[in-house]
Amino acid sequence: GQGHGHGGRGRREAPARKKADPIEQVLRLTLEEMYYGVQKNLKLTRTVIRGGAEQRVSETLTIDVKPGWKKGTKITFPEKGDEAPGVIAADIIFVVDEKKHPQFERDGNDLITTKVVDLHEALLGTSVFITTLNGKSINVDIPEIVSPKYVKVLVGEGMPLSKSPNSKGDMKIKFDIRFPKELTGEQKAQLKSILGNAQY
Amino acid sequence: GQGHGHGGRGRREAPARKKADPIEQVLRLTLEEMYYGVQKNLKLTRTVIRGGAEQRVSETLTIDVKPGWKKGTKITFPEKGDEAPGVIAADIIFVVDEKKHPQFERDGNDLITTKVVDLHEALLGTSVFITTLNGKSINVDIPEIVSPKYVKVLVGEGMPLSKSPNSKGDMKIKFDIRFPKELTGEQKAQLKSILGNAQY
Repeated sequence: GQGHGHGGRGRREAPARKKADPIEQVLRLTLEEMYYGVQKNLKLTRTVIRGGAEQRVSETLTIDVKPGWKKGTKITFPEKGDEAPGVIAADIIFVVDEKKHPQFERDGNDLITTKVVDLHEALLGTSVFITTLNGKSINVDIPEIVSPKYVKVLVGEGMPLSKSPNSKGDMKIKFDIRFPKELTGEQKAQLKSILGNAQY
Repeated sequence: GQGHGHGGRGRREAPARKKADPIEQVLRLTLEEMYYGVQKNLKLTRTVIRGGAEQRVSETLTIDVKPGWKKGTKITFPEKGDEAPGVIAADIIFVVDEKKHPQFERDGNDLITTKVVDLHEALLGTSVFITTLNGKSINVDIPEIVSPKYVKVLVGEGMPLSKSPNSKGDMKIKFDIRFPKELTGEQKAQLKSILGNAQY
């Protein structure tokens, strides 16, 4: 027994039932689903032992995706794997993954989008149009000079925070500035006289 | 014995000497050292057992760094840890790490450097000056338009390949384009007439 140096507890008793290794599955969600939250009903067919006999049963596992959930969030359904004699059924674990979004990348609670602007728009001022994940249209005026590293931040237009879904991260707009493919000698001469005197 | 179900070999013999866990140490090298190769002599004081008595001895471990070695390269000195009764001395393993270089980042066998150019230089043509790891000065003419994603590749000016040190990777020059901080109304009007007609 305990404290007498005979080794671990229960070693001479009937062998403990061993638990099967957990089964991980990927739950791929769109950014919209993680923005609003969504209920996912997942059908599952498994073997159970009822009155000593094996049966195949269908079950539905329900996952309440909360607004703000992130890639890597794990949801565990204990012992929902196949039952077998002498074994504890495995846990089924769903791991959230993020589907690629056509417009936005997610960085924590922020959303990042990249807009292509031509060089003259970057220098002279421009505006960009964004449709947020909740369908809101935003027209963003950018009168300032847009350099390659410039990031325009729209505060509070990002993903909801899972712990306080009324608060949101930011929307960050990055710029991919298209340069002219070629310039004539005359264009170059003019640019030289303008930009050579500019304040860098 | 074997095949009689009595368990693993040697279980009833004298217990095997256990080997101590390996000791990992970081060997930090400059890019120059990895470019040329270098001999590193590392002093070590360790306990050894000679004629049953423990002694402290000093030893020098020599590492021949070969041109082209990379971060993560491991060099093992078997059983150079402290000796102790009943234990096999630990291996000492050096793991190469890279010191930050003021000019170059390494990407495999390539070297990457970033040059700051003003917008008018990016548009009108410029040249940049590079001193390679082996002290060679290169003046690189860039008559073409440099856009933010443009990369100038100097073939064969990178790191030596560890398996064939006469071959080398490339030097990649990236550009950080400085934009004017501000433009006057007149400058903007002129830019509009020039760049508005440019071919993107």
